[in-house]
Amino acid sequence: MTLTMELGARSYDIILQRGALSEAGRLLELNRKCLIVTGALVPPQYAARVARQCARPVVVTVPSGEGSKSFPVYEMLCRRMLEENFHRTDCVVAVGGGVVGDLAGFAAASFMRGIDFYNIPTTVLSQVDSSIGGKVAINLDHVKNIVGAFWQPKRVLIDPDTLRTLPPRQVSNGLAEAIKMACTSDAELFAFLEENPLPPHMERIIEGSLRIKKRIVEQDETERGPRRLLNFGHTIGHGIESTGALLHGECVALGMLPMCAPDVRARLLPVLEKAGLPTTAEWDRAAVWQAIRHDKKFAGDAVDIVVVDVVGQGEVRRVTTEALKARFDAAYREA
Amino acid sequence: MTLTMELGARSYDIILQRGALSEAGRLLELNRKCLIVTGALVPPQYAARVARQCARPVVVTVPSGEGSKSFPVYEMLCRRMLEENFHRTDCVVAVGGGVVGDLAGFAAASFMRGIDFYNIPTTVLSQVDSSIGGKVAINLDHVKNIVGAFWQPKRVLIDPDTLRTLPPRQVSNGLAEAIKMACTSDAELFAFLEENPLPPHMERIIEGSLRIKKRIVEQDETERGPRRLLNFGHTIGHGIESTGALLHGECVALGMLPMCAPDVRARLLPVLEKAGLPTTAEWDRAAVWQAIRHDKKFAGDAVDIVVVDVVGQGEVRRVTTEALKARFDAAYREA
Repeated sequence: MTLTMELGARSYDIILQRGALSEAGRLLELNRKCLIVTGALVPPQYAARVARQCARPVVVTVPSGEGSKSFPVYEMLCRRMLEENFHRTDCVVAVGGGVVGDLAGFAAASFMRGIDFYNIPTTVLSQVDSSIGGKVAINLDHVKNIVGAFWQPKRVLIDPDTLRTLPPRQVSNGLAEAIKMACTSDAELFAFLEENPLPPHMERIIEGSLRIKKRIVEQDETERGPRRLLNFGHTIGHGIESTGALLHGECVALGMLPMCAPDVRARLLPVLEKAGLPTTAEWDRAAVWQAIRHDKKFAGDAVDIVVVDVVGQGEVRRVTTEALKARFDAAYREA
Repeated sequence: MTLTMELGARSYDIILQRGALSEAGRLLELNRKCLIVTGALVPPQYAARVARQCARPVVVTVPSGEGSKSFPVYEMLCRRMLEENFHRTDCVVAVGGGVVGDLAGFAAASFMRGIDFYNIPTTVLSQVDSSIGGKVAINLDHVKNIVGAFWQPKRVLIDPDTLRTLPPRQVSNGLAEAIKMACTSDAELFAFLEENPLPPHMERIIEGSLRIKKRIVEQDETERGPRRLLNFGHTIGHGIESTGALLHGECVALGMLPMCAPDVRARLLPVLEKAGLPTTAEWDRAAVWQAIRHDKKFAGDAVDIVVVDVVGQGEVRRVTTEALKARFDAAYREA
């Protein structure tokens, strides 16, 4: 299945297809120098398979985890391209999860002021969400995604076969973002998630998520308006994430709960549980609240949050710090 | 005088006006946090004057010279904005020459995936050329501008009064880029440069250069086509520059000579001399040629160079390495 992200001159195809990895050479323009960036926890055969289909591959494996979204690793990728005499007409290919895609994408966005970028996501999280839409970035001093660009890929290749090697916790981690999108933007997909077992329907879930994200990004490429819906669960989620014990999707799961009307929350809880996601956690509540307060999205005493009063109809709402605190306290007292 | 760079949603005004620096608060939107980046050799009163007109200024002075267009200085600027809790709605203001503009512009292009950027160039070189057009970058391992972005400023403020404090060699340095643009693109401006003393006509020269550059950038924002005309003199110029003894404009002056037809060269030589620019130099010819060969613009055995056979009608031409070498040898044997 092919979806086209319609962004004028920056339009591109998203190809969702079992076995696509083995067809990269046909589906992408790899007859040039290709910097293939992959992660230490990504099965090495994936990058190797892509490399075999490139004319002149250069494979770089970065350590797994957010720590690689750093200035030193970013600089290393740029230097590697410089050493290999990469030209404006060469390209970068990400083979891995969200960290690899964000990092490699920013290197592609800025090397020689921007070269072609292909994304081949191999985790649920990156397949349903982070590999499309063009947000690329690195972190600085523990603040996530603070330096980066909007740089759309030339093409995205999604091969669900790569999910077979993914640990179950990582599958759950990615499902959180799919549930997030259904909850804010697609009541039908949300009902599907409620009514069906999830693992056998992974392709349907990926496709549904991609369709939602495509629609939102097309409306708002640089996140000035409706794209902020995709931040549902992330205001409190990032605060929880900063305490370090949970994965991104797990934190988003927890972060969604305080933002829902009671009957939405009642529907969301069993879906999260079915997906293997946490719905309550034992963290230092004061520390999490401090981290939320330091979030970059606060403007004075107000913050824009995404709330869902009706499934499929999320909205951005500006609330006071106090109102957010009340939601935060109430959600976990109940849980 | 105000020129508008017409680039659709990225259009902006270029204001050329004596005393503009003192009106920055009226001409720019400074009622927010402003990271003001300036250079150690820029008279500090310029940044201070701008800072007084900002609601919440943060002034950072970077060392002078290309060395500041580096990953560590770029990271430092991003960290400074992070520490000062800069938001997407805040801005960066460059007050200085090309190094300051390129560096500060890249920080603006990438901090939070892009925030507003104002450029207030204070040298001839940046006023006639580098401050407009949106090319921002840093260097890596002595390769110039290898990592960067196309990020258009929100407005450019050009105050010719700042040139009074500029050493004469820096005035000549900037005039080289004005001569370059006249030679490739504006026979009338070139004739003006031939027929008049230059220092009393600096505003006319700046305005003429801006009009040429505006036209070229509007045709080709991301340098895929006609914008490459602006590289006239830069292929050999960058090679000479890498030997380290001369300023950028001086190298461009020397780099233009081999690219001209004999009668164009005969007209160019006296203009360069009048501007105080070198027309011959004592460098290690083999070393310069090696540096030229390593230039990033070479594709195999061919390179695109800009040649001027008729004043005002520069063109991009693909030549072999041998043909370039012949031009290189011939020009300086004669000189």
